[in-house]
Amino acid sequence: MDASTSQAFSPDRFFPADPTTRSLARRCYEPVASLPIISPHGHVDPRLFADPQATFGSPADLFIIPDHYVTRMLYSQGIPLESLGASSSPEFGRGNGDADHRKIWQLFCANFRLFRGTPSGIWLTHELHEVFGIGEKPSAANADRLYDLIAEKLASPEFSPRALFERFNIEVLCTTDAATDTLEQHQAIKASGWQGQIRPTFRPDAVINLDAPNWRQNIGQLSAVSGIHVADYPSFIRALEQRREFFKLMGATAADHAARTPATAELTPLEAETLFQRALKGQASAEDAVCFTAHTLMEMARMSIDDGLVMQLHPGSLRNHNRVIFEKFGLDKGCDIPLQTEYTRNLLPLLNKFGNDPRLTLILFTLDETSYSRELAPLAGHYPALKLGPPWWFHDSLNGMTRYFEQVMETAGLYNTTGFNDDTRAFCSIPARHDVWRRAAATWVAGLVARHIVAMDDAQEMMTELAVGLAKKAYRL
Amino acid sequence: MDASTSQAFSPDRFFPADPTTRSLARRCYEPVASLPIISPHGHVDPRLFADPQATFGSPADLFIIPDHYVTRMLYSQGIPLESLGASSSPEFGRGNGDADHRKIWQLFCANFRLFRGTPSGIWLTHELHEVFGIGEKPSAANADRLYDLIAEKLASPEFSPRALFERFNIEVLCTTDAATDTLEQHQAIKASGWQGQIRPTFRPDAVINLDAPNWRQNIGQLSAVSGIHVADYPSFIRALEQRREFFKLMGATAADHAARTPATAELTPLEAETLFQRALKGQASAEDAVCFTAHTLMEMARMSIDDGLVMQLHPGSLRNHNRVIFEKFGLDKGCDIPLQTEYTRNLLPLLNKFGNDPRLTLILFTLDETSYSRELAPLAGHYPALKLGPPWWFHDSLNGMTRYFEQVMETAGLYNTTGFNDDTRAFCSIPARHDVWRRAAATWVAGLVARHIVAMDDAQEMMTELAVGLAKKAYRL
Amino acid sequence: MDASTSQAFSPDRFFPADPTTRSLARRCYEPVASLPIISPHGHVDPRLFADPQATFGSPADLFIIPDHYVTRMLYSQGIPLESLGASSSPEFGRGNGDADHRKIWQLFCANFRLFRGTPSGIWLTHELHEVFGIGEKPSAANADRLYDLIAEKLASPEFSPRALFERFNIEVLCTTDAATDTLEQHQAIKASGWQGQIRPTFRPDAVINLDAPNWRQNIGQLSAVSGIHVADYPSFIRALEQRREFFKLMGATAADHAARTPATAELTPLEAETLFQRALKGQASAEDAVCFTAHTLMEMARMSIDDGLVMQLHPGSLRNHNRVIFEKFGLDKGCDIPLQTEYTRNLLPLLNKFGNDPRLTLILFTLDETSYSRELAPLAGHYPALKLGPPWWFHDSLNGMTRYFEQVMETAGLYNTTGFNDDTRAFCSIPARHDVWRRAAATWVAGLVARHIVAMDDAQEMMTELAVGLAKKAYRL
Repeated sequence: MDASTSQAFSPDRFFPADPTTRSLARRCYEPVASLPIISPHGHVDPRLFADPQATFGSPADLFIIPDHYVTRMLYSQGIPLESLGASSSPEFGRGNGDADHRKIWQLFCANFRLFRGTPSGIWLTHELHEVFGIGEKPSAANADRLYDLIAEKLASPEFSPRALFERFNIEVLCTTDAATDTLEQHQAIKASGWQGQIRPTFRPDAVINLDAPNWRQNIGQLSAVSGIHVADYPSFIRALEQRREFFKLMGATAADHAARTPATAELTPLEAETLFQRALKGQASAEDAVCFTAHTLMEMARMSIDDGLVMQLHPGSLRNHNRVIFEKFGLDKGCDIPLQTEYTRNLLPLLNKFGNDPRLTLILFTLDETSYSRELAPLAGHYPALKLGPPWWFHDSLNGMTRYFEQVMETAGLYNTTGFNDDTRAFCSIPARHDVWRRAAATWVAGLVARHIVAMDDAQEMMTELAVGLAKKAYRL
Repeated sequence: MDASTSQAFSPDRFFPADPTTRSLARRCYEPVASLPIISPHGHVDPRLFADPQATFGSPADLFIIPDHYVTRMLYSQGIPLESLGASSSPEFGRGNGDADHRKIWQLFCANFRLFRGTPSGIWLTHELHEVFGIGEKPSAANADRLYDLIAEKLASPEFSPRALFERFNIEVLCTTDAATDTLEQHQAIKASGWQGQIRPTFRPDAVINLDAPNWRQNIGQLSAVSGIHVADYPSFIRALEQRREFFKLMGATAADHAARTPATAELTPLEAETLFQRALKGQASAEDAVCFTAHTLMEMARMSIDDGLVMQLHPGSLRNHNRVIFEKFGLDKGCDIPLQTEYTRNLLPLLNKFGNDPRLTLILFTLDETSYSRELAPLAGHYPALKLGPPWWFHDSLNGMTRYFEQVMETAGLYNTTGFNDDTRAFCSIPARHDVWRRAAATWVAGLVARHIVAMDDAQEMMTELAVGLAKKAYRL
Repeated sequence: MDASTSQAFSPDRFFPADPTTRSLARRCYEPVASLPIISPHGHVDPRLFADPQATFGSPADLFIIPDHYVTRMLYSQGIPLESLGASSSPEFGRGNGDADHRKIWQLFCANFRLFRGTPSGIWLTHELHEVFGIGEKPSAANADRLYDLIAEKLASPEFSPRALFERFNIEVLCTTDAATDTLEQHQAIKASGWQGQIRPTFRPDAVINLDAPNWRQNIGQLSAVSGIHVADYPSFIRALEQRREFFKLMGATAADHAARTPATAELTPLEAETLFQRALKGQASAEDAVCFTAHTLMEMARMSIDDGLVMQLHPGSLRNHNRVIFEKFGLDKGCDIPLQTEYTRNLLPLLNKFGNDPRLTLILFTLDETSYSRELAPLAGHYPALKLGPPWWFHDSLNGMTRYFEQVMETAGLYNTTGFNDDTRAFCSIPARHDVWRRAAATWVAGLVARHIVAMDDAQEMMTELAVGLAKKAYRL
């Protein structure tokens, strides 16, 4: 390992250069560095843990093909997605043969400079170093050698998903699952006797958002799995309640909702029914979809109060902005682009109805950082039911975290936030992402100590909350 | 006082940790640290100074009950406002008996951790330390002892409002007063012979905003106090002119306006009259209210040119977002939430008519920090009539000030800003707030010196302007 | 030169105070400090180089009269534009006699404090120091002496535009020229045999934006210079294609477009024709103008794919906000104010049609910094055709650059950005502006090295790209 590279994985990485603050950051970080990982929201495939023989596949399967952060950057520089393993229905671990995977890996290594200064660059460097013991920067020159080295390790039992889950010291990992999912993988994990804690999360977007692809089929599936014939709005609601109950039985503590906007609104029963019937006939308009989601989110808040599932809301992404890519390769190819998002007026109906109820925990996320200091922190600093989730997606980065700490904490207060979510599909990046968070948090807290805003004893308590406490409490884990 | 706590009140607090910049910040701060306080905009109750025997009441009266920054944070964590002394018409110094006040204080102390890293935490620490000589962090353990200690001091003449006014070295304090206020308290202060300079500010929102609670009653009151029967728009305008004249006689140098948006527009006399008559009949719509305020703000700018009162505009708050709390406890309970706010187009009519007139001083505030670099700094760096007020409300914080300095000053120029406003109801926090501003300003200026952007002699001039000069000049004090 | 002033031109200026980062910033900066200047976008008058005898005129001509950054700041503090040399059609080098210019200079020097902490202050200090060897701060006291000193130098051949072009080590300078321009100055430069590389840029706003002043006359001029009778939309398009071809022949590598919003849309041929005919009759509405620009921008992207001219888009300025000043003095008097700007939805049509085509380079700029992390970085980090231009106009400043690096780079990636544009009319400020950029870039990169995010060898490559490589590649120079 040469000097310039090892420098890139220094034990002081991400801490500020000023010696006073760096030393305080180190003191803040060290006690929490090896605390267990709480991962209350993410997209890891539960199949990885259901089958004790599961593997991560090739190095390209692990690092490139399913990671839209990685492929979008390569694509932006003119590398076709086809040459990065994209196909219309990519399935984990099923590639186009090892020769193709090696080519994908070579392309990635030859273009590794594109990740300079990016979160992906940081996560990949961490994974190579900490999981595979590789301290070299990937390059055209070392691509083949690294490929062989990683492939060999991936074939060994020490690198099975379950083995890495344990090595990563993950206390709990929550997946994200459709409302119509039968959670077979989760059942298999339980049945296997393996002790890893993998919990499902109830994500009903595909039946709540009328403009979701194949909405009517999804409703049919909802009828089938719930055993409730969904023919009108009341039966739709009963079926959702039934699914939530099932998810709870399977260990879920939270529901999750995506919507283009955080609009909430209360319709009359007749209005809701009319929209629902129009949708069943395939005649719902774009505006109908917005109203229906706005109303049904209020129903979901009511259910959360009843059944205790924490409610998460992830609004503000214009999905599949690039139609060409969507038509060729489908969802989640790095083509979702954030939108300006308004919370103060949009959440007014929901918060007026449920925001004062301490039984509800509503965790908000945003892709529009302008809402941090203007809307989200003032709201979270007031409503008992409201908490702010961590920086999300494009903002899950060192600078994104810095902006979050600086713009949210003064007004919301630390205790109205919820620690960290890794929100990842890339299982091996989980320790890297939590480490970035813990270091960014230590940097923020150290800055408070250095400027005599909080004392060191308080700082240590804050660090433990940031690393594990807030997430455990907010997600009722 | 233990080490960790005294650290929290270091003479270097809030300065950056880097030794070069810290030492420069200290050099910038020291000459202005003890300059008198100019407080040109705030909400302190003038009754405190009208009666020489006035006291601040109990520790809960002083620190908790009337301070919505404090109560909102406690409420957000599930503590009912009822248990914090909220009632539908809280009056200063009238509590529910000392036992209740002690309980409120205990709750506050037991939850003091919630204020870690918040401006309230900083102000409270400063007040306890500097006003009451208390260096301990409040906690469940010391709550009773601190209560007794503070209560004893508050009962002594050295802790009367007038005594603290003098001890705080306040040169001038401006209050905020309804257009219909007879300013009896201000008259009593003058009549008492006490030398403290307390000036009223003309705040006509309750008669200008048609959707203000009890608008028609307010108009009746306006007729009564002005002696002008307000029956149409011209008599409305004459009555406002009369009140402004009266406020000027009583020492006012400024008017202040709150509005949901900074919309300005010029109606024809007939249009204005039609709106006004509709409102008198109780038939004004929400849109009418917006138009009426937009037009009347232009009238207020014209009056400012005529009578020389500085015009302040505070737009962008959605008041009483939490209806439940509003209905139970009324206004100003920490439930006002900022909105996205547009200035470039909204102010176009007013600035085109009056923006080039050097007789007008229009001071703008914002709760939407995105407008700093995009709209407000470019506007203030061009129009002679326009100045930018300091960071307001949720942004009156260390980070809020940093963002303000970084995002405003390059384009607006220091001399198009107006120094600091404490904008507080909490009289004892005034020195704390001005001290935070002076330290934040010193940090900004020291950063310019450290990076060789301004020289030290210029820096010292800038500091004096930031601490007192800009505010005095902008507010014509 | 006294100590406090020389400090203001330290070799370490603009670098952070922390010794570790400062020393790294110095190491990053030094290798690129004297690389040639690539200036791919700006507003320098080509006449300066067409005539070998051209001079810069008086010190007021050089530093004040044509620089709206300077005059707007003086105007904002009540100094009339008339007293700063503004007239309805200011022409370079033609003043109102030397006595008047001396008075303008005196006003400027007496008010030099207004530029403390502003980019203009930094550029002016650099120009005085590096171009004229003046280390003193301008003041009322030294105004006359400085005037004489600068005037004498400006009269000497060493200070001719061509001589300074060479002394500044400018490799290429691109001007901005109307679509109807015959590029006579550029022809004269070529004919003169002088080796300085001055390239035109195709800027067709005045014929594309239906609400441009004198649009119909402009269309007449377009017919005249292109030799194509513009009578309908197809002939309009053909004439634009002809002009682009001519610009290419004259050395242009790019087109540039300003629009109030970045709206793009595809009209049917009939719709486009209808709009065009309505405009020819002088009957186009404001909405027509928006639609026409939105559609024609898509045509311009298509042409860029065909002819290879790089496409630049500069949206989001509300031009001539101050009608009084516009009517008295015309365009570009510092009265243009930014607007909130939306990119995700507005660019959808254009990007869906052309965004995946690697033959297109579309360089986006913004005056709304909120779009950096929310919209522009996510878009540029995905679409192969898209690149982000540097911080523009009010954001071409130290803090503006810092925000750009912090908010853009993690998500867009360095290689989807385009280095620096000085975008200036003030020729002598070009080295100052590029130096600020190189120092700000070195500060950013040094921060990455100091925090072990990139290694020093990578950092050096990044610096070369930031200083010259990215701009050369993006602009195909």
